[in-house]
Amino acid sequence: MTLALDAAAQDLLFREARTANTFSDEPVSDEQVQAIYDLVKYGPTAFNQQPLRIVLVRSEEGRARLVQHMADGNKAKTSAAPLVAILAADNEFHEELPSQLPHFPQAKDMFFSERSVREASATLNGALQAAYFIVGVRAAGLAAGPMTGYDADGINKEFFADGEHSVLAVVNIGKPGEDAWFPRSPRLSYEQVVTTV
Amino acid sequence: MTLALDAAAQDLLFREARTANTFSDEPVSDEQVQAIYDLVKYGPTAFNQQPLRIVLVRSEEGRARLVQHMADGNKAKTSAAPLVAILAADNEFHEELPSQLPHFPQAKDMFFSERSVREASATLNGALQAAYFIVGVRAAGLAAGPMTGYDADGINKEFFADGEHSVLAVVNIGKPGEDAWFPRSPRLSYEQVVTTV
Repeated sequence: MTLALDAAAQDLLFREARTANTFSDEPVSDEQVQAIYDLVKYGPTAFNQQPLRIVLVRSEEGRARLVQHMADGNKAKTSAAPLVAILAADNEFHEELPSQLPHFPQAKDMFFSERSVREASATLNGALQAAYFIVGVRAAGLAAGPMTGYDADGINKEFFADGEHSVLAVVNIGKPGEDAWFPRSPRLSYEQVVTTV
Repeated sequence: MTLALDAAAQDLLFREARTANTFSDEPVSDEQVQAIYDLVKYGPTAFNQQPLRIVLVRSEEGRARLVQHMADGNKAKTSAAPLVAILAADNEFHEELPSQLPHFPQAKDMFFSERSVREASATLNGALQAAYFIVGVRAAGLAAGPMTGYDADGINKEFFADGEHSVLAVVNIGKPGEDAWFPRSPRLSYEQVVTTV
């Protein structure tokens, strides 16, 4: 055993977990989402920044507002999933740095006074947090169906009227349904990805 | 238990795992990195794209070439860590889509013919893969020390002469040493991060 993580956990999070395209009718509760968040909030980011924001789409009206902006190939599954979460980066995350990085509160002004720098940082670190969230969905015994096929500007304007948020992914969440996934696609080999200097 | 993942695995990956600033002398083997990669390569991305590239810095010369580009506050720990990995996005990842997405090979040309679109996609999906890699380091019973404080252009030119790669993070890896971390900083509450529509 080269890994410390037990085999069942490896399977749950990576080896047997799959991106789901269909889901059962079983609902996903707020308690489940809270348990996911309370686990993955500890995932590391630069300067402990926490740009990730999560919008849970639960109302019929909210679902319709979202689905209109999804790519055609994603509309049906976004309409049918038990729960849909919009993951977005808050480009004004630096306002919280003084409280979230108490040993170095000056990071807010030293590094993040420029909007373009903030936005790049929010995208990168928000994506790290989005990945932790997807791992967390799987840790809850649920399947995730992350999507990036949508009109991003449309979603940003529809759900984040302040103009300070950028959608990173929309994630369908639930128990997998029938024929939930395609056969697994290949992965690049270690030799294709890893080099040594 | 709201989560399916066992408590020991929760602790190993998130609750007790910490970003390390010092490490023991114990080396990190290629076998360990391969086990990490062979687990986290299954993490989901858009169109099964796999832009992440990993450069393991093992030689003294390689270490010196990297350290010169690190921010002053990161030079000492980057010099001392048992293993340092440069995580970068390959902005030409689309060349592999036909082999990696066999049921939809036309995605390469339909979605990724423009460099700016490719680069944004490589950054977002490379960051997802970087997060899976950090989780994988922890799954191996090791501590990660991810850093973004460096001269990114300098690292890109130094290690990726083709001009087609963008560094995402540099990660120190090893067993934690003495006084390896600061007290844990706060996290935003569920109510600050999650809203419902």
